[in-house]
Amino acid sequence: MREVAVIGVGMIRFGRYDKSVWELARDAILEALQDAGVEFKKVEALYSGNMYRTNLSGQQILQQIGLTGIPVVNVVNACATGSTAVREAYLAVAMGLHDIVVAVGSEQMGKMGLLGADAARREESVEGILGSGLMPAIFSTAGVEHMRKYGTTIEQFAKVSVKNHKYGYYNPRSQYRVLLSLEDVLNSRMISYPNTLYMCCPTGDGAAAVVLAPMSRAREFTSKPVKIAASVLTTDPYTDRVFALPDPNTMTRNAAKLAYEQAGVGPEDLDLVELHDCFATAEILHYENLGLCPEGEGGRLIDEGETEIDGRIPVNISGGLLSLGHPIGATGVSKICECVWQLRGEAQTPDRQVPDCKVALAHTIGLASGGACTIHILVR
Amino acid sequence: MREVAVIGVGMIRFGRYDKSVWELARDAILEALQDAGVEFKKVEALYSGNMYRTNLSGQQILQQIGLTGIPVVNVVNACATGSTAVREAYLAVAMGLHDIVVAVGSEQMGKMGLLGADAARREESVEGILGSGLMPAIFSTAGVEHMRKYGTTIEQFAKVSVKNHKYGYYNPRSQYRVLLSLEDVLNSRMISYPNTLYMCCPTGDGAAAVVLAPMSRAREFTSKPVKIAASVLTTDPYTDRVFALPDPNTMTRNAAKLAYEQAGVGPEDLDLVELHDCFATAEILHYENLGLCPEGEGGRLIDEGETEIDGRIPVNISGGLLSLGHPIGATGVSKICECVWQLRGEAQTPDRQVPDCKVALAHTIGLASGGACTIHILVR
Repeated sequence: MREVAVIGVGMIRFGRYDKSVWELARDAILEALQDAGVEFKKVEALYSGNMYRTNLSGQQILQQIGLTGIPVVNVVNACATGSTAVREAYLAVAMGLHDIVVAVGSEQMGKMGLLGADAARREESVEGILGSGLMPAIFSTAGVEHMRKYGTTIEQFAKVSVKNHKYGYYNPRSQYRVLLSLEDVLNSRMISYPNTLYMCCPTGDGAAAVVLAPMSRAREFTSKPVKIAASVLTTDPYTDRVFALPDPNTMTRNAAKLAYEQAGVGPEDLDLVELHDCFATAEILHYENLGLCPEGEGGRLIDEGETEIDGRIPVNISGGLLSLGHPIGATGVSKICECVWQLRGEAQTPDRQVPDCKVALAHTIGLASGGACTIHILVR
Repeated sequence: MREVAVIGVGMIRFGRYDKSVWELARDAILEALQDAGVEFKKVEALYSGNMYRTNLSGQQILQQIGLTGIPVVNVVNACATGSTAVREAYLAVAMGLHDIVVAVGSEQMGKMGLLGADAARREESVEGILGSGLMPAIFSTAGVEHMRKYGTTIEQFAKVSVKNHKYGYYNPRSQYRVLLSLEDVLNSRMISYPNTLYMCCPTGDGAAAVVLAPMSRAREFTSKPVKIAASVLTTDPYTDRVFALPDPNTMTRNAAKLAYEQAGVGPEDLDLVELHDCFATAEILHYENLGLCPEGEGGRLIDEGETEIDGRIPVNISGGLLSLGHPIGATGVSKICECVWQLRGEAQTPDRQVPDCKVALAHTIGLASGGACTIHILVR
C-alpha cells in the first residue's frame, strides 16, 4: 500500500443556510481544491458522505461544479458517514487505483434532529422496542454509569462543554461562538441527566472536504503535506452484552487499538485529539477509550486541564461537536480538516493553534443498529 | 493489485415479502456463505447496497446473523447501488486489505416505484424542472430517437420483453414467471411509447450477495472460482449536451471501453451479457453501447435471434429486470450471481444454461442527477 497525504482541505462555517446542501458541499470542495492547488479536472474519483440524502449525493454536488464522468461512490455510516468517505478515498489512493481523490461530507439537517431521522424504523429494532436507543438516553446512561463507578461529577462533564465552547469561540468556522461559564452550562435546561442543553451538540448544516494524493506526489501540490498514518473503521462486535444496546465504548477501543498499531504510535505521542463529543459525557468516556488516561480518570483529566490547548493532550480545539456543530455527514471530515490545519500550524487564530503539533487523531462514531467508528491518525 | 475471485453467490427469489428487508438480505448472505463453504466469522468486511434505507443497512443485516465488529460500508448509487457495493468489495480484496469480503444488495420497494423515490427532490434538479427525468420518459425518448434514426420498430422492442420473460419463466428466482407472446406484450397497457406495461420492469423486494476472496486462496473454498476480470464505475460526463438530461448511453459506452481494456477482452469474446433492461428500449440501446453490434443494428440483433440462448451473444438469460425483477439495491448483485452460475454451468434448469460459458459481462446503470454505471466482466 502506498502512503497517502492530505494535500488540501476545505470547510464551510457550520450553521444554518438557505442554500441547498449541494451548494454547501461545492463550496467546501472548491476551497479544498484551491488549498491543494489542484484543478477540478484532475480529480479522479469522488467519495461523498451524506446521511439524510445519501443517494447520488456526490453526483448532485458535482453538478454544481461540472461533471466529468469520474467514479462517484456515495457512502453512509450514521455519524461516521463523512469519515467513512475519507477512509474509502484513502483506500483508493493507497491501493494505487487513483492519484487525486476528493472525499466530501455534507448535511442539511433543518429542524430535523437525530431522533427524527431514526424514528421511522425504530419499531423494528431492539433499541426501538426497549426505548433506549435515543442518543441522549445512550449518553446519559453511559455518563451515569461513569459517575457510579468512578465518582465522576456533573461539574466535570460540564467542564467539557465550557472548554469546547471556549475554543469554538475562537474558531471562525464554528456554529456557536459563545463563551460559557460553568454556571451557564449547569443552569441550562436539563435534557437527559447529567447532560444539560449546552452539553448536547446542536443540529445544523455543514460541509467539509479533503483532497488526497499519494505521498510520493504530494509535494507537487503543497509544501505541507499531511500523512494519513492510520485509517480504521470498526463496528460494534456485540460480544459481551445480552441486549443489543448501542455501546459507545467498545467500537472506539477496538478502533484505537487498530489505529495505533497501523500508525506505529501510542496515545502518548498525540499532540491533538479531535474526538466525537456528541454529548459532554461522551468526551470523558472517549478520553479513556482512546487511552489518553487510565480507566476512570477522565474526570481528573478535565479537572487538571490536561485536555486544554496548553495541557498534556489538547482535545477538541476545533470547538468539537458541542460548539463547532454536528451536521452529520460533514462532521467526520471536519475533524480531519481541523487536524490538518493544526499540523500545518494554520489554525485560524493564535488562540487556537496547538504548539508544535506533529501527530493528531480524529475520531468519529455513529451508534444505533451496530454502528460504526472511524479513527484517522495524521502526522506531519 | 491481486486477482479477485467470486467464491460464493446467493440470492432470494425476487418478489414481494412480508419479512423485513434485513431478513431477506440475511438469507442471501447465508446462501452465499454456504455456497462458498465459508463460516460467517471468517468474513472480514461487508459492503452493503440499499437505496431506500441505505444508512446502517449493512449493520442491520448483520444484526440478523451476529455482529463481529468488522468494517461495514453502506453505499448507494441509484440503480447501480448493488454493483457499486460489489466494486468496493472487489477493491478491498484486490488491494490486499482483506481476504474474505461479502457484498450484499437488498431492497424492499413495497408500493413505491422509482417515481416515488425520486419525486421529493425533483423540484431542485434540472430534470425535475423540465419534467423529463422520470424513468419511463427517459427510455421512451431514447427509444423513439432510435426508431427515428435507425428505423427500429415497436415490434423489435417488444421482442426483448418476449425473450426475457421466456428465460425468466425457467428461472426459479424470477419475480414474474410467465410466458408472453409478442401480441401479449404489444397489447398490454401503453406506459410511455413505445414501452408498454410488459416492456417496463416491475418493482419488488429482493436480495443478493457475493463472497469474494483473492484468487490465490479461492480453491480453498471452491472448485469453480470465477475471476473478476474487470470492475468499472463511471458517471455521466455531461460533455456534449446543453441541458443536463439523463443520458442512458454515454456512461455505458465509457464503462464498456474501460472494462474491456481492464479485462483484455472484447465484445466478441463474451458468452453471456446480463445488461440493465429496465425498459425494453434500454436493452436495444445497450446492445450497441456494449459493442455487441454496430450502431443502429440493435433491432436486427433481436430479430435474428442473436441474443437468444443459442444465438451469437445470449443476453439476459436470467430473465433480466423485465422478468427477474428490479429491487433496486439487489439488482446489480443479482446480475453478478447469474453470471457466476452460468460460468460454473450451474444455471438452475437446462433450458437456461448457456453452453460452454467462459466470459460473462454484468452491466448496471442508474440515471438521474449524474447517474452511475458499473460493468463487471467475469471469467472462469
